[in-house]
Amino acid sequence: MAGLVASKTVRARKAVLAMPEYHPPLAGRDGLRLDFNENTLAASPKVIERLRQTTAEGLTKYPEREGVERIAAAHFGLQADQVLLTNGVDEAIHLVCAAFLEEDDEALIQTPTFFMYEVSAGMMTAYVKKVQADASLAFPGERFLAAITPRTKLIMVASPNNPTGAVVSREDLLAICAAAPQAVVMVDEAYYHFFGETVMTEVGKVPNLIVARTFSKAYGLANLRIGMLAGPAELMKYVRKVSSPYNVNGVALDCLPVALADDAYVTWYAEQVRVGLGRMMDGLRALGVGFYPSHANFVLMKIGPKHAELVKAMRARGVLLRDRSTDPGCDGYVRITVGVEEHVERGLAALKESLAEIGWEGQQVSQSASRQGSDDKREWE
Amino acid sequence: MAGLVASKTVRARKAVLAMPEYHPPLAGRDGLRLDFNENTLAASPKVIERLRQTTAEGLTKYPEREGVERIAAAHFGLQADQVLLTNGVDEAIHLVCAAFLEEDDEALIQTPTFFMYEVSAGMMTAYVKKVQADASLAFPGERFLAAITPRTKLIMVASPNNPTGAVVSREDLLAICAAAPQAVVMVDEAYYHFFGETVMTEVGKVPNLIVARTFSKAYGLANLRIGMLAGPAELMKYVRKVSSPYNVNGVALDCLPVALADDAYVTWYAEQVRVGLGRMMDGLRALGVGFYPSHANFVLMKIGPKHAELVKAMRARGVLLRDRSTDPGCDGYVRITVGVEEHVERGLAALKESLAEIGWEGQQVSQSASRQGSDDKREWE
Repeated sequence: MAGLVASKTVRARKAVLAMPEYHPPLAGRDGLRLDFNENTLAASPKVIERLRQTTAEGLTKYPEREGVERIAAAHFGLQADQVLLTNGVDEAIHLVCAAFLEEDDEALIQTPTFFMYEVSAGMMTAYVKKVQADASLAFPGERFLAAITPRTKLIMVASPNNPTGAVVSREDLLAICAAAPQAVVMVDEAYYHFFGETVMTEVGKVPNLIVARTFSKAYGLANLRIGMLAGPAELMKYVRKVSSPYNVNGVALDCLPVALADDAYVTWYAEQVRVGLGRMMDGLRALGVGFYPSHANFVLMKIGPKHAELVKAMRARGVLLRDRSTDPGCDGYVRITVGVEEHVERGLAALKESLAEIGWEGQQVSQSASRQGSDDKREWE
Repeated sequence: MAGLVASKTVRARKAVLAMPEYHPPLAGRDGLRLDFNENTLAASPKVIERLRQTTAEGLTKYPEREGVERIAAAHFGLQADQVLLTNGVDEAIHLVCAAFLEEDDEALIQTPTFFMYEVSAGMMTAYVKKVQADASLAFPGERFLAAITPRTKLIMVASPNNPTGAVVSREDLLAICAAAPQAVVMVDEAYYHFFGETVMTEVGKVPNLIVARTFSKAYGLANLRIGMLAGPAELMKYVRKVSSPYNVNGVALDCLPVALADDAYVTWYAEQVRVGLGRMMDGLRALGVGFYPSHANFVLMKIGPKHAELVKAMRARGVLLRDRSTDPGCDGYVRITVGVEEHVERGLAALKESLAEIGWEGQQVSQSASRQGSDDKREWE
């Protein structure tokens, strides 16, 4: 919070002064980018073909979201009024908070998790109740359910979770919805394609379930900023009300139907990542690096006190990682993105060199996943 | 508010239930689009050339805002920490409200004006105090100043104003800043290029002044969603804090430096509009249609009770107008965008036919602009 003293003339909102800051690197990400869980290869060639059809006349026009929302809804077997396209998942999270969270409400999240939940809920001056995972970093199922109170108004759960790659079973997610009928339960399925299990099929059937999806990961469209919320029309009308009608840019809207139609591409890419994930975990075992067995396109590695040295040594080799040491319960952890085989191999080769260079002597990680109601049968290795 | 009853299970925020809705047409805008004050021709050819260099690899990457912010800041003679790029001006307005407006604060606006000020301030549960223009629709200068109270925390003024095209002098804007040192004064210069007067030169000198700009109008980039806020670093750090680091898409970020560098194009387009504006006002005089003499790329016409009939008759001729009759003090008013000469002539020709078809018998408009501290010496005609 250093430097955030109130201006001599104008005070910021108290909630803004108290908000944590989210400062990911916004420039200088040169090299093999294994730091942001992006698609490491490319978007579908059909998408770029469509993008290049953009005309100088077309750029002058305000984007028209509705037609594309109908296409997206049909793709997911939903009605248009159940779907809202958003400026990435960041905006999706913000809009759900803005639609539902009053000042005295509680927002319930697990930690560690995606940082924007706390930022957006905090901005609405709501109390953010955090249920910390135990050392296993698995979803703290029973303690999470027990943390629901009558004041709980919004529950945000990422499955697969970031930065761990841990998942929550459909049964557990639906139990959370049932246990908190007064709350919106937003399930963030940003990493769905790498896992394959979804509650999207329950949208409109479960009255308080909203599902968030992104096109930044498997689809490889992070640059275009497009995400999606799907929920019952009765809830989505409020979310729509707090959104700008022009929140999604026109290039993204032009490209989305092409990306959705090219199912073969995203299926192929997700399969590359599943193969790459196996290879990455094998490689980490061979190196003696502990990790959380992930269901997403990244692996959280337990490095220990030399975490920052490792990130630096990797950067010197042109490979970017993300140090997660400041995430709650993640001291000493570093995250590596899993992409196509070539990038996994380059990542592992650089890891081997870097660990040797920094004199890393191994990190015994012997906790078993306590699971606590999670379906995740796998353990820390 | 019809249909906006609370869900049986989950209540939206009270502020959201009370919020006015903003429902511009989001589809079906086929024809000559004189309804949204867009550039009626095209973006710079250099911009589209840059856009088409986008690669399938590039699309996978999260956008990097900082480098482009430095370029934009330099273009305006500012420091990078004084500038924030935004997802259009809609987001800019929202972020300023989110950074500064507490629940008990007052936001001060004129009416009629751009609808998003009220929507965004209302979303923060602030009280929105509105100073209605008199029948002249000029800026209500003295009454506006008198409406400032110790609780006034945010003042939002568009100059040129939308939907009127009325302007506020630099002297008046600076007097407002001086009269409300406890408040942020956001001057929205979305239509700056068609007017030519700016307070951008005062950014960083006046401690509570923030200027908003858009690239949707003269630059012709509405489709890409890119806007900008410029203010003292002490205030901008709060606005930056409430913004997502990935709020602006990468295609817009790639194109912005090219658009800024092609000064010749935007200067040329603004000149076309100034010529077109003269021709439009001459044409309206010839037709006997009253209008507010505009400083922007649109003209607010006083049609009277047949306003909706006119819009319909124009649409049948393939020309879209925007009925502003529900704006406060604007009953019977219709707005027409001014573009390049060809589009002005097509608009006027369709107007002549449409007015004849609907049996329009003229509308005497004889109020003089009361001016009230505004620099605008021109009058309704």
